[in-house]
Amino acid sequence: MSLQLVVIGCGSATPAGNRISSSFALKKGNEVFLIDCSEGSQMRLKPYGIRMNKISRIFISHLHGDHYFGLVGLLSTFHLFGRKDELHVYGHSLLKEIIDIQMKVGNTSLSYPLHFHEIEAEKNALIYEDDAMTIETFPLIHSIPTNGFLFKEKGRPLNLKKDFVKTYNPSVDCMQSIKEGNDFMDSDGHVLLHKEITEPSSFKPKIFAYCSDTVYTETIIPYIKGADLLYHEATFMDDMLYAAKDKLHATASQAARIAATAEVKALLIGHYSARYASIDPLLEEAKRFFPNTIAAEEGLVIEV
Amino acid sequence: MSLQLVVIGCGSATPAGNRISSSFALKKGNEVFLIDCSEGSQMRLKPYGIRMNKISRIFISHLHGDHYFGLVGLLSTFHLFGRKDELHVYGHSLLKEIIDIQMKVGNTSLSYPLHFHEIEAEKNALIYEDDAMTIETFPLIHSIPTNGFLFKEKGRPLNLKKDFVKTYNPSVDCMQSIKEGNDFMDSDGHVLLHKEITEPSSFKPKIFAYCSDTVYTETIIPYIKGADLLYHEATFMDDMLYAAKDKLHATASQAARIAATAEVKALLIGHYSARYASIDPLLEEAKRFFPNTIAAEEGLVIEV
Repeated sequence: MSLQLVVIGCGSATPAGNRISSSFALKKGNEVFLIDCSEGSQMRLKPYGIRMNKISRIFISHLHGDHYFGLVGLLSTFHLFGRKDELHVYGHSLLKEIIDIQMKVGNTSLSYPLHFHEIEAEKNALIYEDDAMTIETFPLIHSIPTNGFLFKEKGRPLNLKKDFVKTYNPSVDCMQSIKEGNDFMDSDGHVLLHKEITEPSSFKPKIFAYCSDTVYTETIIPYIKGADLLYHEATFMDDMLYAAKDKLHATASQAARIAATAEVKALLIGHYSARYASIDPLLEEAKRFFPNTIAAEEGLVIEV
Repeated sequence: MSLQLVVIGCGSATPAGNRISSSFALKKGNEVFLIDCSEGSQMRLKPYGIRMNKISRIFISHLHGDHYFGLVGLLSTFHLFGRKDELHVYGHSLLKEIIDIQMKVGNTSLSYPLHFHEIEAEKNALIYEDDAMTIETFPLIHSIPTNGFLFKEKGRPLNLKKDFVKTYNPSVDCMQSIKEGNDFMDSDGHVLLHKEITEPSSFKPKIFAYCSDTVYTETIIPYIKGADLLYHEATFMDDMLYAAKDKLHATASQAARIAATAEVKALLIGHYSARYASIDPLLEEAKRFFPNTIAAEEGLVIEV
């Protein structure tokens, strides 16, 4: 299992040309998490190889339309396709009201269980955990309450050494017991110590940090520190620094400086202002401060 | 000035391939009326030659998402582009609530005056009138309150005969007086009768009738009678008649029979179920009952 990010949309406030607003899919094994869901997102799923019925959780960073205007249409399409699997939506409390009123006016009683999980602005919180990963939310600084998300894979338990397994042919229960930290006793009563018969898993857990809309702020560093991939908005370039500050957005170089300070492994920039027909200059600006920067473009697939 | 209809979207409940849901633009002179506004409509305006700042009125037939999920995004884009001109939106009362809550959560105070006009379901009413046209709404029969719209150009006043104008060189006030029905007296006191110096305008006022979602019902005939162009939904073909009745939609042949009974000049079908990759069979079915049928497809421009 690996984490794979698909860029569905990477524009900002308004659609521009073929570029739609913020929308990303994070694939993990058989599941897909949607992160923000702008208008037109559902039309891009199939062309970008994202299977609708694999989407299990949707995370909405904040309630500016360019981050959620595609959500209710998608929920409605799930229903019209007869979805049965439960769906989890994470967002600020008013998002539930927005969903509810639109279902009510359409006289729609969803075909599937929709679980809404309220996230609190200005709080770092664990919002999901299973055997393989955790998902946290943390506060960004923007003109309305806005949250980032942190997707962290968990490490795997120690492996049993191949030689040991070959020689002693342990039972399943026995292997489980060793994985839990116990030593092994063979049929003659000889004890093999836990540390002698195990070795670290080669699996490297990955971390993806998502910072949708935010002004430049070092308050996010503790959360995103050392991430394998950081998505950080880069609405403007430095010559628009004043506009960026005014609208509580960041520039490409600011995103890059955050990436450098947080010592992440790779930076993905996006949320480009519609004024940039070409994103090359933004990428260039970011690379001056953080060489391992990738510019989001629609349909791009990144191994975290 | 003529009436020109542009098909922006002609799918039904869910987007299918490149086909988005119901959305049409009616161009009249320097103004554009949007009729329904599905998700993704705003992205098609520019490619289809529709200037955003010319859109003065938006009519939403009912509150199923495939007819309005693109509305709030468009209103938001108008705002972000700094629109100043007033905009008029016509729809059922809860639409206003849906708009308001989404503007509130985004902390958006629109840059332009938005006038919301509530339309009442199950009522025929005049909802707009100016010197050149009237717009009426009338009830359709669907699973939630749904309205059709009737766009009627007004006839033009009589023209002054060219010979008269050339011979007598009347003043503007004098011409206005004759157009209002008065006779003309020359400087010698001779009276020329109104009927002698005027002739009918060659302008032929057009009527466009829009029936978004409706089961087959002859109750709409009195409203749409004799229209130059009737748009009538044709979600299914006759082999799905049972589904059509069940979901309160119409088939292609039913749309055609309505067109024939109402003696309209041309029929436009649309709102195709996503099951139809090709719409040729629907067109064929309709043409058997009403030969002058046109199948809507995105980007199609029709002179009413």
